[in-house]
Amino acid sequence: MTQKRIYFGRFISTPKPDELWIRTGAVLVDSTDGRGVIEKTDWHVNGPNDAASKLGVEAPVVTAKDDGFFFPGFIDTHIHASQYPNAGIFGKSTLLDWLTTYTFPLESSLGNSKSPMYNDSSEPPDPLARAKAVYNRVVSKTLSHGTTTASYYATIHVEATNLLAEIAFKKGQRAYIGRVCMDRPETCPDYYRDESTEQTIANTRASIEFCKELDPSGERIAHIITPRFAPSCLPETLSALGALAKDEDLRVQTHISENLNEVKLVKELFPEQDSYTDVYDHHGLLTNRTILAHAVHLTKEEMALVKSRKSKISHCPASNSALGSGFCPVRELLDEGIEVGLGTDVSGGYSPSILDAVRNACIVSRHVGFLKGGDSRFNLSVAEGLWLATVGGAKVVGMEGRLGGFEQGMLWDVQEIEMGQIDESGGGWAAGVDIFGWESWEDRVAKWVWNGDDRNVKRVWVGGRMVHERKP
Amino acid sequence: MTQKRIYFGRFISTPKPDELWIRTGAVLVDSTDGRGVIEKTDWHVNGPNDAASKLGVEAPVVTAKDDGFFFPGFIDTHIHASQYPNAGIFGKSTLLDWLTTYTFPLESSLGNSKSPMYNDSSEPPDPLARAKAVYNRVVSKTLSHGTTTASYYATIHVEATNLLAEIAFKKGQRAYIGRVCMDRPETCPDYYRDESTEQTIANTRASIEFCKELDPSGERIAHIITPRFAPSCLPETLSALGALAKDEDLRVQTHISENLNEVKLVKELFPEQDSYTDVYDHHGLLTNRTILAHAVHLTKEEMALVKSRKSKISHCPASNSALGSGFCPVRELLDEGIEVGLGTDVSGGYSPSILDAVRNACIVSRHVGFLKGGDSRFNLSVAEGLWLATVGGAKVVGMEGRLGGFEQGMLWDVQEIEMGQIDESGGGWAAGVDIFGWESWEDRVAKWVWNGDDRNVKRVWVGGRMVHERKP
Repeated sequence: MTQKRIYFGRFISTPKPDELWIRTGAVLVDSTDGRGVIEKTDWHVNGPNDAASKLGVEAPVVTAKDDGFFFPGFIDTHIHASQYPNAGIFGKSTLLDWLTTYTFPLESSLGNSKSPMYNDSSEPPDPLARAKAVYNRVVSKTLSHGTTTASYYATIHVEATNLLAEIAFKKGQRAYIGRVCMDRPETCPDYYRDESTEQTIANTRASIEFCKELDPSGERIAHIITPRFAPSCLPETLSALGALAKDEDLRVQTHISENLNEVKLVKELFPEQDSYTDVYDHHGLLTNRTILAHAVHLTKEEMALVKSRKSKISHCPASNSALGSGFCPVRELLDEGIEVGLGTDVSGGYSPSILDAVRNACIVSRHVGFLKGGDSRFNLSVAEGLWLATVGGAKVVGMEGRLGGFEQGMLWDVQEIEMGQIDESGGGWAAGVDIFGWESWEDRVAKWVWNGDDRNVKRVWVGGRMVHERKP
Repeated sequence: MTQKRIYFGRFISTPKPDELWIRTGAVLVDSTDGRGVIEKTDWHVNGPNDAASKLGVEAPVVTAKDDGFFFPGFIDTHIHASQYPNAGIFGKSTLLDWLTTYTFPLESSLGNSKSPMYNDSSEPPDPLARAKAVYNRVVSKTLSHGTTTASYYATIHVEATNLLAEIAFKKGQRAYIGRVCMDRPETCPDYYRDESTEQTIANTRASIEFCKELDPSGERIAHIITPRFAPSCLPETLSALGALAKDEDLRVQTHISENLNEVKLVKELFPEQDSYTDVYDHHGLLTNRTILAHAVHLTKEEMALVKSRKSKISHCPASNSALGSGFCPVRELLDEGIEVGLGTDVSGGYSPSILDAVRNACIVSRHVGFLKGGDSRFNLSVAEGLWLATVGGAKVVGMEGRLGGFEQGMLWDVQEIEMGQIDESGGGWAAGVDIFGWESWEDRVAKWVWNGDDRNVKRVWVGGRMVHERKP
């Protein structure tokens, strides 16, 4: 039995940076094999009734309302699912004290009943129950914000990490699931680390196997090798993880050069390597499937090395500001030819929304310009921000040409956006974006970017399957 | 007949910068004379049934739910009501080209049927109908975000400006209404300026009279003298406005030192004055009731002059970032003893929410620190941000001790905040803030600041009158 759907309405995407592509038309999606691929498109269709005959197929038609549009699903290239309950809780901390004050206690509480977070608890701890609540919430939440693909950090715990994989799979989000690797005693607390390189690798293998059983294709759910960051891993662990990523042909994710004290720490812990980037390269972790989060303080030489290895960068502007890490020079990275996507970096970043990351990327890019004497060349436009959130993200997670647009052969990972129109008396639907009616579609998209939220996300599909529908 | 209400529940405020004050108790509000003043407070009340006897009065009890709290209403010290439809529309422009590209066309369309915004319009222009829709929307919108007091720029048009006053009065928002004064031909377009100093003053007087008739007390609605900014006014107009403010004992609002090209322009247009600040001082506009928006590029000497005149500053972080204006050094201003509040500066700022301004103030303060070698002394905390939005704002609009807190004698300008608690399965109310249940109240307030929106604002009161209730 074939399972085909026609989507009719306005389609907006960013095929190139700084280009808003806006068309009305129809797209035929085939979900027969469960993948949800765009089989055909037609940009000359006049209306929903016209669509089937133009596309030459009988299939149900899904229509976007005239005041809305289909937009490619967002790709969150860096998010710590386990940290979601701490979103917004960071005080005036910076990276290294933030980890010990807020992050390790929360993460450990998803698998360790002796976590310091349970010290004051009146009830007996149930870490897996907590993991279940947190992971159900964060997957539902990000879907509701239009995130169709997410590259997740979980925790060191195999059972809880596998639970995240299961929840993402069940809810239908495309997800890369990282069991966090950290086993260096000088930098990891006793209550939250793997005991040895052997245990790190064995636990990682357990999670790899679980993901493979869940989705043998690796298209919807796949494990991603996740050394927390260089300082938290024994050198032999980094090498073993590099080898494992190669053997299993898996993606890698880690952090790089987020904070100046962190950079200094890496220098102390790895005196034999030339740079932070070189540490990863030395251990076989700087691959063309590696996602490096932050990259705020890379030297020119490090950028060149990242570029030569075809590794990718996840830009997390909200986090870099909140934790006082610094400004990531996105324009410079793009000019170097490095592939960049956006990450929320919950909970270093306070928001689970990639639309918020687009806003913050635009804002921060202007601030980079302030530092360079007010040079507006560094400014990211709304279209460029959206491009980073979709096409850029697709490149970063190795799905270039398959996610981020409406071309034939691409996957139907899509969000339907809706905006409220104000009536003559100034009344109307009360969400963040108020459309008065005279705005061009370029301006409407800008209004969505700057004031939109999950209320504007009406429906979300991943691989042709509807995975979220806003409550009315 | 007395009209008294008891409010029972959790009360949170920021009496001092960096202090979150959190109490459960009861507050008695007397609205008999229509002012809605706090008559009595009791912070030892055990429950709603206990409140009346503790306060020694029979009155209906309004209760905040256990997962919410009462918080002082926000004060928006700088917002262009007329620009609201452009929220989010600014592209890569900076102040001076933004004015001519986006702002003058929109503002003029609220009173001038020959506005360039009507060039492509198929329907006959009806500027006042447009003003009605825009002003109804912006007042409702800001109320829904908890803004109980707003200092508005309208446009140059008397009729539309008076309409804004009427709408704010009817909807119950405390508002200062500024008819925009601009009459210098070199800097103002032909289609949007007063014709002479005489016309500027006559039109301003007409709006002053209208506001006085609407609210003779001047407590709820008052005119505020509004020279757009120094470059847009003839020198003799600035002097006449200074004299008028003095005669009528009115507040003044204007812009200062937002953008470096603007500062340069002021130097060219006013060669005889020492500085931008000196221009206002010279014309009698630097009073202890003057609100200066932005103040991004003030010199030390200018700060000292502002301080000596007891003029106030409206910090508009979102706008300063969006228009690439620069970083306002808030910590430095506060250290100088200058009074600072927050402004959304719609539509230079993209958001009508003061909570968003709190977020942006915190973010930008970290960026100021980046410029000073990573000095965290510049960081604003969540509590300081909220203090700027309430107590700071009260000082800026000349309502210190009457707005911004829960002390006896203060006005009941209050918002009730509600946050969703997640259940065991990760389900629950779908708004921006997810509470898991183990968070302290300090952490819950931080979560509200970083992820809250109008959905968390359940009810809003101004002067004891309920002026907004969220739709369920």
